[in-house]
Amino acid sequence: MDFDAIGKYMVPFDVDLDLNEGILKGYTNHTIRRASSMWHYYQDESALETSINNGDPIHYEVFEKTVPEEYGHLMMGVSKLYAGTVGQEFFMTKGHYHAVAQTGEVYLCLKGSGYLVMKTKDGDFFALPMERGKVLYVPPYWAHRSVNTGTEPLISFFVYNAEAGHNYGDIETEGFSKRVFNQNGKTIFV
Amino acid sequence: MDFDAIGKYMVPFDVDLDLNEGILKGYTNHTIRRASSMWHYYQDESALETSINNGDPIHYEVFEKTVPEEYGHLMMGVSKLYAGTVGQEFFMTKGHYHAVAQTGEVYLCLKGSGYLVMKTKDGDFFALPMERGKVLYVPPYWAHRSVNTGTEPLISFFVYNAEAGHNYGDIETEGFSKRVFNQNGKTIFV
Repeated sequence: MDFDAIGKYMVPFDVDLDLNEGILKGYTNHTIRRASSMWHYYQDESALETSINNGDPIHYEVFEKTVPEEYGHLMMGVSKLYAGTVGQEFFMTKGHYHAVAQTGEVYLCLKGSGYLVMKTKDGDFFALPMERGKVLYVPPYWAHRSVNTGTEPLISFFVYNAEAGHNYGDIETEGFSKRVFNQNGKTIFV
Repeated sequence: MDFDAIGKYMVPFDVDLDLNEGILKGYTNHTIRRASSMWHYYQDESALETSINNGDPIHYEVFEKTVPEEYGHLMMGVSKLYAGTVGQEFFMTKGHYHAVAQTGEVYLCLKGSGYLVMKTKDGDFFALPMERGKVLYVPPYWAHRSVNTGTEPLISFFVYNAEAGHNYGDIETEGFSKRVFNQNGKTIFV
């Protein structure tokens, strides 16, 4: 992707973020993950298959305003994770380490409720609650995944080092240390 | 400053940001710039001196939730720039390049109105309007300064590379290419 330049400098820009609804206007990249994108992530594969055959709903969307994926730039965007369960397991994002594992990420939750669950390569686990106005810090080396335990979309604004990249493969293989379930209306970590 | 660790990893954390009022709770660094901190920045030094002798008002405050100032971390905080003028020149932040000039910054404006003015070492100038819901991107190498052209505090949430540092000295010497004045109720760039 090309970017406008003034001389040898990238041109500054702005985009509009609806702070109440969590809608980012002017995004340049849009990722959609449906049930069928989520094989191997949820525990109940039979429930996932039924859901895929039943309209293949969207689990989450990511809207990014892209910048060069190079050191010094910061990537920003909005993550929108829908409410729902696969079997009893709450909808979640795939979760990832950064390919440059040493880079962190900042989330600012705008809407909804859930958890940012995190893990390290050593098996450490950490969960922070997400709700409007929470600023969450994912330090370097922590894989991170959002889980929507509420009834409306869980929406966050995020910023990360543009060179960070995504390592989804390790999480697809390792999984997280804990899953988050809806057990008779209660949220439990198993 | 020490940070909590789990094994060799920094512990994730959250802080609360009031998205309506722009108040960051749980900050760990607080910078206050009064009129007397702003020598050499405004054009009308006699008006500045009068203001200093007249209560030395705060021009802006910065609230940061600090992280290690190392590659891979992201620093976050809130900037609060008060409304007012020195002579006819609107209150502004000192403005700075990053010491690691190659690093950018993301602003999310929460309240107030004004401009983010930017310049490069080659003398390029750029201004983006600030108002609630604007996400502003300062690409690498651009010095940046906020200017409050409104009547209430101009408040933004920001994120930048934690290793970026601040280079104020060059702006103190160079100034910006344009100043922003209140001319009979109109905002003008000179």
